[in-house]
Amino acid sequence: MTNIEALKELLRIPSVSTIHQGIEECAEKVDQFLEEAGFSSQIIETEGHPVVFGEKKGKSDKTLMFYDHYDVQPPEPLEEWGSPPFEPEIRDNRLYARGVADNKGNFMARLAAVESFDELPVTIKFVVEGEEEIGSPHLEAFVNQNKDLLAADGLIWEAGYKDAAGRPTMLLGAKGLCYVELRATGANRDLHSASAVLVENPAWAIVQVLASLKDADETILLEGFYDDIKPPEKEELELVDQIPYDGKLVKEMLGIDKFLLDMSDKEAVSKILYGPSCNICGILSGYTGKGSKTVLPAHAVAKVDFRLVPDQNPAKIYELLQAHLKKHGFTDIETELMGPLWPARTSFKERFVTVVKESMDAVYDKETIVYPTMSGSGPMWLFTAVLGIPTVSIGTGDAESRAHSPNESINLTDYSEGIQVIKELITRF
Amino acid sequence: MTNIEALKELLRIPSVSTIHQGIEECAEKVDQFLEEAGFSSQIIETEGHPVVFGEKKGKSDKTLMFYDHYDVQPPEPLEEWGSPPFEPEIRDNRLYARGVADNKGNFMARLAAVESFDELPVTIKFVVEGEEEIGSPHLEAFVNQNKDLLAADGLIWEAGYKDAAGRPTMLLGAKGLCYVELRATGANRDLHSASAVLVENPAWAIVQVLASLKDADETILLEGFYDDIKPPEKEELELVDQIPYDGKLVKEMLGIDKFLLDMSDKEAVSKILYGPSCNICGILSGYTGKGSKTVLPAHAVAKVDFRLVPDQNPAKIYELLQAHLKKHGFTDIETELMGPLWPARTSFKERFVTVVKESMDAVYDKETIVYPTMSGSGPMWLFTAVLGIPTVSIGTGDAESRAHSPNESINLTDYSEGIQVIKELITRF
Repeated sequence: MTNIEALKELLRIPSVSTIHQGIEECAEKVDQFLEEAGFSSQIIETEGHPVVFGEKKGKSDKTLMFYDHYDVQPPEPLEEWGSPPFEPEIRDNRLYARGVADNKGNFMARLAAVESFDELPVTIKFVVEGEEEIGSPHLEAFVNQNKDLLAADGLIWEAGYKDAAGRPTMLLGAKGLCYVELRATGANRDLHSASAVLVENPAWAIVQVLASLKDADETILLEGFYDDIKPPEKEELELVDQIPYDGKLVKEMLGIDKFLLDMSDKEAVSKILYGPSCNICGILSGYTGKGSKTVLPAHAVAKVDFRLVPDQNPAKIYELLQAHLKKHGFTDIETELMGPLWPARTSFKERFVTVVKESMDAVYDKETIVYPTMSGSGPMWLFTAVLGIPTVSIGTGDAESRAHSPNESINLTDYSEGIQVIKELITRF
Repeated sequence: MTNIEALKELLRIPSVSTIHQGIEECAEKVDQFLEEAGFSSQIIETEGHPVVFGEKKGKSDKTLMFYDHYDVQPPEPLEEWGSPPFEPEIRDNRLYARGVADNKGNFMARLAAVESFDELPVTIKFVVEGEEEIGSPHLEAFVNQNKDLLAADGLIWEAGYKDAAGRPTMLLGAKGLCYVELRATGANRDLHSASAVLVENPAWAIVQVLASLKDADETILLEGFYDDIKPPEKEELELVDQIPYDGKLVKEMLGIDKFLLDMSDKEAVSKILYGPSCNICGILSGYTGKGSKTVLPAHAVAKVDFRLVPDQNPAKIYELLQAHLKKHGFTDIETELMGPLWPARTSFKERFVTVVKESMDAVYDKETIVYPTMSGSGPMWLFTAVLGIPTVSIGTGDAESRAHSPNESINLTDYSEGIQVIKELITRF
């Protein structure tokens, strides 16, 4: 079976983690492919979906690890697919299937690169989880329980995409996340709003709390919020000028006239890379149907997320929020911290970053664009902050790959080049 | 047919305006009863449910009018009724049926009082609408189109209730209402919250607008909001001490520790009678389900009501709100005014108020408690402000009457006394 045939076999398994579909089957297939490639592989149970872990010894005592996931996003809406999402199909040199870009294609390209060596110069490890698309709820426990197993000198993260101009990219981090639900309660039932002269309205309390979190120039007002931010390194700041960004196009796509505070493209890139944020994800109270209903609500709830940058700590930010509520007299607000994620960042100065970049340069014609972070959040911090492993995310996708959307695909030339990059990396590591 | 038998016949018609049930049948029955009592009666069509108007000439050229409505609240939940809501039943000297207290019983008691006169000393008019329980949406047009028909020297409003201590009550007004929906829009779709560093969140805009409306001591911050408030008259202020109010019991019932600003019972009564308010009836944006979803919402909406006191004008308050939004730079907020209601207030100094009070005193053992206003809002202003008729609300209900709830009822002794009061009033008017 060729590597592409094996990839198709993996893609045929509808391993949708949200609905717990095809999970065991897909974990077993990953385990089987690792074993067939000469890895010592095991399926490790967790409180959720199992993690597949494989290791293959090399000549030196250095270890290169790959983080991948065998689960995929739901394929809906099905009617928008040109071919069925779990029946991989090649058209115009592109392979179409759910999960081919995110992230089964990357896993198989990395495996192909490893298999091309008769004798591995370094030890290779694969950690392939099954809950990435649902927020990796059990990965933290898994990492903490398997620190020795997961020891490595460098980690390649799940995915990467060429940009619209065909330039390869590298990502060196992820933002942290402090997600908080705020709840306020008033009377023991919804009241006629004639009582508003007398009875406290929990919607006012929630509105006042939210309004106190940020001022008009977007400064986040939790005392100490900015204290732990590590200023970007000189090389990181220089990057802002190098990163291509078409703000006009982004604004057109989103249907907005301007960015927050009317910021320039350069400021936008700087914020995406180095800026924390405070966002209302949701708010609900009282009557929200059509027309009017004069009600004084009994409950109000808001969901707020803080995106964090190195070295902010979501647990500490949650404490600052609680102190803020206390200081401002919002003593009746109930709070709940949900799934905190730490920021992750691997320094430009790490030798591993240089080696990955050189491996990219050896394969691609175009210059690789290095992003110090992705704009989103994820479990990368478990490997950088908890295990201390330099981590870089690269992969075989491109600007047309449509991860999480219908007609997910990769270009097969990118796939071959991606295999080459990993070969170069194993050699140079 | 006795008056009570006729009342039962009216109560058997399930004239639920919300679902347009039994409306024509009930209007015809009211018209029939008026004709049988010697009134010249007509069913006047509107854009909604018809209004029944009856007139019977008296000796003098003075006119006393009654405002009633033949529609009722929905009876649900049915399982909580001791007897079916549209099968009137007498138990322990109480008559149970939907609408008996609000407001068919009052209509029939007034009719009984009129019928007891061989020759009427004054002209009597009845205006009986069919949309009171759905906010009287077509009454304004009806009043404006029938000003001559509706001319009168005094108006008895629909209902009144003895309080828990058995004291009769009179209400001399209603609060006004300016109900506004506020809408904000961001990008053309919900975004991943990683974009919060760049893209304006309409939930923030709505929160900031709401937070700007009121300060911590409950002062409403629209410039000019308090300008048109007519300070209570001396007699009105003295009332605050006379009105019985058990704040401790109210707080217990609502499950709250304290009133807004920890106000005393006396302050509470003062606010109920003379205080305007600004209330969030509803707010909605983004993800409001269980758990977390990191979303930057595309839309946010809030519903706000301002309860108004004489002589505030809801149309002007809406203009002040728009000026406030402009002044504070909330230029992207869309607003919609919904069904404005003007405040209504009849002065203590009106002779009509004195005559009604004397009629009450002639019948009841206990002193009548006079409230300058009800805490809620309604169409009374059409008669006070548009037609200029002194208006007092009294009726035959008591603290157990459960208007709008299952097991609505009246005490038959109260009903007889209510007839006597109207007889006294017609005589003294």
